[in-house]
Amino acid sequence: MTTHVIAVDVGGTEMKAALVAVEPGTATPLREIRQPTPRGDGPILDAVRGLVESLRGGVELAAAGVVVPGVVDERTGVGIYSANLGWRDLPIRDRLAEQLDVPVILGHDVRAGGLAEARLGAARGLRDVAVLPIGTGIAAALILGGALHTGGGRAGEIGHVDVGHGERCGCGRTGCLEAVASSAAIARRYRARSGEPAAGGAEVVAALRDGDPHAAAVWQDAVDGLARGLIVLAGVVAPECVVLGGGLARAGGLLVEPLTARIDELLAPHHRKPRLELAELGDTAGCLGAALLATEGLTTA
Amino acid sequence: MTTHVIAVDVGGTEMKAALVAVEPGTATPLREIRQPTPRGDGPILDAVRGLVESLRGGVELAAAGVVVPGVVDERTGVGIYSANLGWRDLPIRDRLAEQLDVPVILGHDVRAGGLAEARLGAARGLRDVAVLPIGTGIAAALILGGALHTGGGRAGEIGHVDVGHGERCGCGRTGCLEAVASSAAIARRYRARSGEPAAGGAEVVAALRDGDPHAAAVWQDAVDGLARGLIVLAGVVAPECVVLGGGLARAGGLLVEPLTARIDELLAPHHRKPRLELAELGDTAGCLGAALLATEGLTTA
Repeated sequence: MTTHVIAVDVGGTEMKAALVAVEPGTATPLREIRQPTPRGDGPILDAVRGLVESLRGGVELAAAGVVVPGVVDERTGVGIYSANLGWRDLPIRDRLAEQLDVPVILGHDVRAGGLAEARLGAARGLRDVAVLPIGTGIAAALILGGALHTGGGRAGEIGHVDVGHGERCGCGRTGCLEAVASSAAIARRYRARSGEPAAGGAEVVAALRDGDPHAAAVWQDAVDGLARGLIVLAGVVAPECVVLGGGLARAGGLLVEPLTARIDELLAPHHRKPRLELAELGDTAGCLGAALLATEGLTTA
Repeated sequence: MTTHVIAVDVGGTEMKAALVAVEPGTATPLREIRQPTPRGDGPILDAVRGLVESLRGGVELAAAGVVVPGVVDERTGVGIYSANLGWRDLPIRDRLAEQLDVPVILGHDVRAGGLAEARLGAARGLRDVAVLPIGTGIAAALILGGALHTGGGRAGEIGHVDVGHGERCGCGRTGCLEAVASSAAIARRYRARSGEPAAGGAEVVAALRDGDPHAAAVWQDAVDGLARGLIVLAGVVAPECVVLGGGLARAGGLLVEPLTARIDELLAPHHRKPRLELAELGDTAGCLGAALLATEGLTTA
């Protein structure tokens, strides 16, 4: 059976929206719109409504799924906090539902993107999956027993687990995974060590390919931190598969090969060994995940 | 609606079995048998069958739930490993089902006991719960989004997460929570520090009540380790409530008060603050959990 939904991924700079046909195991965008995200929560909600109205044309819609960044409570439909979009405790789901005649499901961009990778992408068919986009920060989307685990919007904060390196994090604590392995941290640590400029992780990867020893040292620390973070995930939630995404995953084998080797060194007999995969859905994951939430929210409601 | 099931908790030394009447929110044992656990997997499975036949008398049974220690895969019904009971890759569910004319559900003793605390005990009514029995070892049962998370039988190994204390664990690695905060570790560290005998955590708690400075130091290390372990759980799975059980939880306020204070010091703004509760169901938790698994296994099958 085909269900038609509208999916909207509200990013810090761009909104991606699509009319999506969802069937078990597939989600096909039929029409898409991308536009800049306006400033302020009133204009953003107006823009989401405008996108839904523009895309629906003549199709019987089952629901609209909207995903946003920051801290989100899926169960209450509230955007608890977003530094980028400037809101706090905004009842997004109810505000949108007041003016749209379809059910609205609110989701979190990272968790929705993870759900899409688990259902349609790199981990399709698996029940226990962690999806880690590695960019400015690091967080995990957890799909456990086949269902998205939200923890009241607070689950998956693997970026601020102490992995023992002792360096200070922007959050004020020490040892956070993010402080050694995020794209931003890798660039910062490379600049400090080499005196060379590097705007992001991609430049450090380029230097690594050129045999730069400073890049190699910084990369090794990042890989060690990631391996320790994944060992924590293995011990606590035991995913079958970890999907690596975000900018850093573009390093491909340069990331996956040493990370696999380091995990093998750290893994204990009680651990379930996670398969490592690279994300497949790129920047459409959030929008596809919004479509899945819109569909699955209806089936479980 | 009342469902009748038979629940069997196979412990290392004793088997507890009951005919249980289960209704939503309650599980009432109607008849109970406790007997020593025989040696060897054949005699154990024969004893389980005997208990089911003895207890069922005249009642229409929906299922039998059997929980065992060690590493258990609930989905395949296999006892993967038990050092105490001496088996490896034993298809317990199928072996029992061959000779019983009721559906059999296999579970893990710690996870089943945790499910009982989440449904009927200290955390009843909550969706995201971690239950930690603290005894010779430390492991967590995770109830996430209202469902037991098993991770192929490998989830919840919080006892071997590195919490940074640097001491060696029996598993060969360093920094494991279990190496500083299990009842066995507390007794061992107290003996090493004080030169006094202490067979288990209970003696150290008694010394702590008497103002013994060695007991106080060892206890403080245990509390710090537990707080760091619970912060990892908060960051990864974000439970609303953590239920403390096992022998060490008998310390009551001596454990909960300093642990709450230390968690408050370590908690970051991104964390969901877990409520701490003491387990309520004592040594009947595993058997009640087996009854719940027998009932819920049927509803989801």
